[in-house]
Amino acid sequence: MKRVALLGSTGSIGRQTLDIAAAHPDRVRIVGLAAGRDVERLAQQIAAFEPEIFAVGDADAGARLLGEHPQWESRCAGFGPEAVCTVAAWSADVVLNGLLGYAGLRPSLAALAAGHDLALANKESMVVAGELLRAAAAAAGARIVPVDSEHSAIHQCLQAGRPTEVRRLVLTASGGPFRTWPPERLQRATVADALRHPTWNMGAKISIDSATLMNKGLEILEAHALFAIGYDAIDVLVHPQSIVHSMVEFVDGSVIAQLGTTDMRLPIWYALHAPERLAADFGRLDLAQVGSLTFEPLDRGRFPCVDLAVEAGRRGGTYPAVLNAANEVAVAALLAERIRYLDVPAVIESTLAEAGESVPAGRLDLATIAAADTRARQVAGRRVGLACTPEARS
Amino acid sequence: MKRVALLGSTGSIGRQTLDIAAAHPDRVRIVGLAAGRDVERLAQQIAAFEPEIFAVGDADAGARLLGEHPQWESRCAGFGPEAVCTVAAWSADVVLNGLLGYAGLRPSLAALAAGHDLALANKESMVVAGELLRAAAAAAGARIVPVDSEHSAIHQCLQAGRPTEVRRLVLTASGGPFRTWPPERLQRATVADALRHPTWNMGAKISIDSATLMNKGLEILEAHALFAIGYDAIDVLVHPQSIVHSMVEFVDGSVIAQLGTTDMRLPIWYALHAPERLAADFGRLDLAQVGSLTFEPLDRGRFPCVDLAVEAGRRGGTYPAVLNAANEVAVAALLAERIRYLDVPAVIESTLAEAGESVPAGRLDLATIAAADTRARQVAGRRVGLACTPEARS
Repeated sequence: MKRVALLGSTGSIGRQTLDIAAAHPDRVRIVGLAAGRDVERLAQQIAAFEPEIFAVGDADAGARLLGEHPQWESRCAGFGPEAVCTVAAWSADVVLNGLLGYAGLRPSLAALAAGHDLALANKESMVVAGELLRAAAAAAGARIVPVDSEHSAIHQCLQAGRPTEVRRLVLTASGGPFRTWPPERLQRATVADALRHPTWNMGAKISIDSATLMNKGLEILEAHALFAIGYDAIDVLVHPQSIVHSMVEFVDGSVIAQLGTTDMRLPIWYALHAPERLAADFGRLDLAQVGSLTFEPLDRGRFPCVDLAVEAGRRGGTYPAVLNAANEVAVAALLAERIRYLDVPAVIESTLAEAGESVPAGRLDLATIAAADTRARQVAGRRVGLACTPEARS
Repeated sequence: MKRVALLGSTGSIGRQTLDIAAAHPDRVRIVGLAAGRDVERLAQQIAAFEPEIFAVGDADAGARLLGEHPQWESRCAGFGPEAVCTVAAWSADVVLNGLLGYAGLRPSLAALAAGHDLALANKESMVVAGELLRAAAAAAGARIVPVDSEHSAIHQCLQAGRPTEVRRLVLTASGGPFRTWPPERLQRATVADALRHPTWNMGAKISIDSATLMNKGLEILEAHALFAIGYDAIDVLVHPQSIVHSMVEFVDGSVIAQLGTTDMRLPIWYALHAPERLAADFGRLDLAQVGSLTFEPLDRGRFPCVDLAVEAGRRGGTYPAVLNAANEVAVAALLAERIRYLDVPAVIESTLAEAGESVPAGRLDLATIAAADTRARQVAGRRVGLACTPEARS
């Protein structure tokens, strides 16, 4: 039985985590909930799971919730980012962080500082402040287990050897909805096209990231930070079926891969219990029925976000934070149809050039990251304004 | 650096082991050699690797060798099965048993009795006397690491979880040269057809076993004995490219697979050093170049040897030994073109019916197995005579 605090409970990962908790009440007890603004759904979740504590990111929405349910006031940690951190630090075995974007960073740190294991779906935490999170986990003797299907796969594959025996990580990528689109067609790609992910059913932000392949770029940075592997030893392989979730090549040439259905409940379940595996039935893989698994190289020219991310990772300092912030701004603008698909890498590239800064090794602290995030959002916001075309304003 | 005694040094596995030893003299020292009758090759091997001891299975061939190289007499353990066992018991870290068929059993036991780790390519040892080998390994604190690519894969995949967390083993099968042949065409299959393996370059006996799929049947029995897994939890999946060498499904639905090029040096290298992995360059897997991996169910009707093997395994007692002996006799007769491809399962089935015996659990000893082997060879020999058709006598 794991006591779980769930951050981002109304999002896609959060809801699937609650599906698991409902199906396995003997294994998962939800002790804390935190959500951003969808308080209608959060109210249902509080009623169903009766957490010991909850928080709401958005103050107005939180006030509305307590207005309708005054009996929950004693369990409310409050509203806003600090309240979310209070839930993260609440007495639990595991904190599952399914928050969106940069906002997940402080709660991740709060969970680790409290000594809780961190089941991390919020990859942005690891991208912008990987060193800080690793240091916090080491100091508290806590573990970080990734929920991303790719990193969950790597985490599992790494068990088949020792850290010194790893030659290469291979992150698989579905290729997204534009895998086969020629460059000229990409110029006319719409938000609806970008949201049409071929294999995974996910939230809007990560769906866009999957269309630009920035998701894979962020995953490379996440893998670098999680597994302490150099960028030269992290490859991407396009695998449209998303059945092989990722692979590890060891120094002897042996490749260990993790496979499964495209169901996020599997990596969530694994992250909650790792290194133990508990029985579950989230759909079993039948390869004879799948029939064929295909692999192709990544076309880095058509998907420049991958190299933007790797370059930011290699530069280090605040570049990853700037990359992430610029991407969050660009994706929001794309979802609002204020810019076009191909503007996304352009906004990120120019923001990196203007706002990225090197920092001496070991000197990157939270304040510096936060300042870089703020500045990058301002710069990217301007760039989005410049990129804003009459055609894009629908 | 591993001190290695190599049994079956002139066979396919033996020669590849010596390729490895030649390429990695800092990691592998060949201290013992044993071969059957190819003393010309053995003489070259003795000259090149200067083992501390060697043995020859065939007495006439051995006498010829010593006649030509009298200076090696002091290092000669003698001729015949007992001499091979002497090499197996010689001071070594690992004994690699690449002997062919039932003849590998006593040397396997001798190696374990001497406390040596056993790198086992001789799957027949495990098939006919799995319990005895496991008991011998446990008593001596020695390990058995399989060299078969499928079992090496399973051995590696099992590291990604605990024994209690395993739901199912999935052995992959290339399907052999007759994978797509309809039943009526199989009636006209020749030995040359059967020897034409699509992906692996192997010795004649195992190539025939791969054509009948008895190889997969024996592997199921081997997996059962090696990993203490019930027959209901061992599946076969046809995978013509032989890139996924096998898989383990865990109780949470996660599937861990081992992939690699079709180069036996990889599992040999792994077995010599396991659980450590050492750097090697036996060809790296490039999945983007492979392009596609396909999977299909096994057609058990067209390849009855698989079910014959599983049934023998379920019955236990001397049935596996009888199965193996009948198969060895039938394959030799097929290679000599005295029977036809489709006679192989018929000979095995009728030999099992006549010669197989149940034995109370824990009461199967070496003498019983040896007697069953002898009797099964007599029975199968008669069956081969009966099956012997004018058309088959070419």
